[in-house]
Amino acid sequence: MDAHHPNIAIVGAGAVGGYYGARLAEAGYPVQFLVRGDYDAIRAKGWRIKSCDGDFAIAPQRVSVHRTPATLASADWVIVTLKATENDSIPAWVRPLLKPTTAILTLQNGLGNEEFLAGHFGAERIVGGLVFACIVRTGPGEIFHSDHGHIHVGSFLSDQKAKAIEIAGILSSAHIRTTVLDELADGRWEKLLWNIPFNGLGAALDLSTDRLVGHPNSLALVRGIMEEVRAAAVAVGTTLDNSLIEKKLRETQSMGPYRTSMQIDRELGRPMEVEAILGNPFRAARSAGIPTPRLEMLYRMLLTVDARRPEILARNQIPPPDGRGS
Amino acid sequence: MDAHHPNIAIVGAGAVGGYYGARLAEAGYPVQFLVRGDYDAIRAKGWRIKSCDGDFAIAPQRVSVHRTPATLASADWVIVTLKATENDSIPAWVRPLLKPTTAILTLQNGLGNEEFLAGHFGAERIVGGLVFACIVRTGPGEIFHSDHGHIHVGSFLSDQKAKAIEIAGILSSAHIRTTVLDELADGRWEKLLWNIPFNGLGAALDLSTDRLVGHPNSLALVRGIMEEVRAAAVAVGTTLDNSLIEKKLRETQSMGPYRTSMQIDRELGRPMEVEAILGNPFRAARSAGIPTPRLEMLYRMLLTVDARRPEILARNQIPPPDGRGS
Repeated sequence: MDAHHPNIAIVGAGAVGGYYGARLAEAGYPVQFLVRGDYDAIRAKGWRIKSCDGDFAIAPQRVSVHRTPATLASADWVIVTLKATENDSIPAWVRPLLKPTTAILTLQNGLGNEEFLAGHFGAERIVGGLVFACIVRTGPGEIFHSDHGHIHVGSFLSDQKAKAIEIAGILSSAHIRTTVLDELADGRWEKLLWNIPFNGLGAALDLSTDRLVGHPNSLALVRGIMEEVRAAAVAVGTTLDNSLIEKKLRETQSMGPYRTSMQIDRELGRPMEVEAILGNPFRAARSAGIPTPRLEMLYRMLLTVDARRPEILARNQIPPPDGRGS
Repeated sequence: MDAHHPNIAIVGAGAVGGYYGARLAEAGYPVQFLVRGDYDAIRAKGWRIKSCDGDFAIAPQRVSVHRTPATLASADWVIVTLKATENDSIPAWVRPLLKPTTAILTLQNGLGNEEFLAGHFGAERIVGGLVFACIVRTGPGEIFHSDHGHIHVGSFLSDQKAKAIEIAGILSSAHIRTTVLDELADGRWEKLLWNIPFNGLGAALDLSTDRLVGHPNSLALVRGIMEEVRAAAVAVGTTLDNSLIEKKLRETQSMGPYRTSMQIDRELGRPMEVEAILGNPFRAARSAGIPTPRLEMLYRMLLTVDARRPEILARNQIPPPDGRGS
């Protein structure tokens, strides 16, 4: 490994992976992009990024793009930006990239991704990251980063903090504002506090965030769900402060209309990250003995919406609530 | 009044009003149809009905159709089939039809319509009716009645049962299967037991009934909502048996794909009967001290979906639940 230019691989270079990978490439890091759909376009034209932090492009001759694991070289850092619904395909993509010292950063949504990666590749390699950004794919190899952009990272194992610090240094050197978390779980649950109500209600009702915070009834509903999530977060050992709820609501009210990824996934008929964003937190709350009736109802609703796909139905059935009337 | 052929007026002759009014006209009753949109077509071509109980048509020269109250004669029976969201327009339509002896049957959905009519026109006139039928408008003056079709009627005042018996006789004589209820409230709440989960979830999630009963998670959700509604119904004095829930679920499972009126209203951007179907039952349950957390969540969701229309927002705000975390 070149200490100044570690080799990086982006697994699942969609909007988020494409944006951050292109930032790293622009900063001089060797980056392998693993893509599915846009291989030909990226190979032909590279990346074109419109960003509130400055537009840029990566010329095709500077882009190493791959559509099968067969062509990959090993990497110092693997950054996973696949949707959590595609976790089953991760082992085949990641194995060819691994050296004994390779570390893995997951920028995926929801709960359970670090655990999944740790189970396959070893917990000591894993760093979790939370992306706070509005980034969409506007065409093949074309990305629009409209707002925010910072990343919070934290090591999965508390005695591996050096890994989080290392990737924070790399990201920061590529014009990506990065913060190292003392406790990854705090960051995960803080993000869930927002993602569960806004992705969940947005996808279930097909409403953008401005509609959800612009109406006293849905605002009460969002707040009620947030309070359930915070109670669960505290029960599993995080330190989320209650004032976070009003802070997140204010930020969302000032944010303008925003369609969450899950709302867009539903509209386009793509799998939704129901398990990562709602199912795993629901089960974590239940294991901790915290009642989350609103979260449960929303989870059941979204499983039903997502059940066009029978393989999801079979996997994700949850038992009925204790007692018929509960 | 001709004892054999009382004069009937249909206020709001859309799909349901058009179908039953046409059945009454076919049976020889003089029927005034009060319509909004399809006046010209009905005047020119009459009614054409496709029905699982037999197709028929009413020729234009036999149809008395009106688009303003100005042209109306008085009636012996007024049958209200306007959507509950249009109740504000009822007084102007109904007043010209009233004689001292005129009785009013409402076939509207949800809770509170008899009370509204009683408040305006006197409780002794009012009969409530529950329609169990799949009836849609397929074009101007064209109606498709695909399944079921029976009506349960009950007097609003328990000492006015003769009124319910009278209208049951009239409807029955026009090939409309009709049952007189001992207690109107039993019928209202039995229908709410179905309408609240299926209209509510169908509109919130944009899913047809087969999707809602075809999946263990949504089936558990439907059942949970039904249990809340039944508890409320019992608390307000009805006698709904718990076995009704499984019966309704079985019937719905055998019914095939069905899009409820509220799901269709949402799709077409029309006002939804949120207050009649969810809001009034929610408030009745709350007044009776029955917790209905799922109903409340669904109600808040639908108010938000419906809030494109600001006048609804202002009227229907409900207070936040007691205690932030409840």
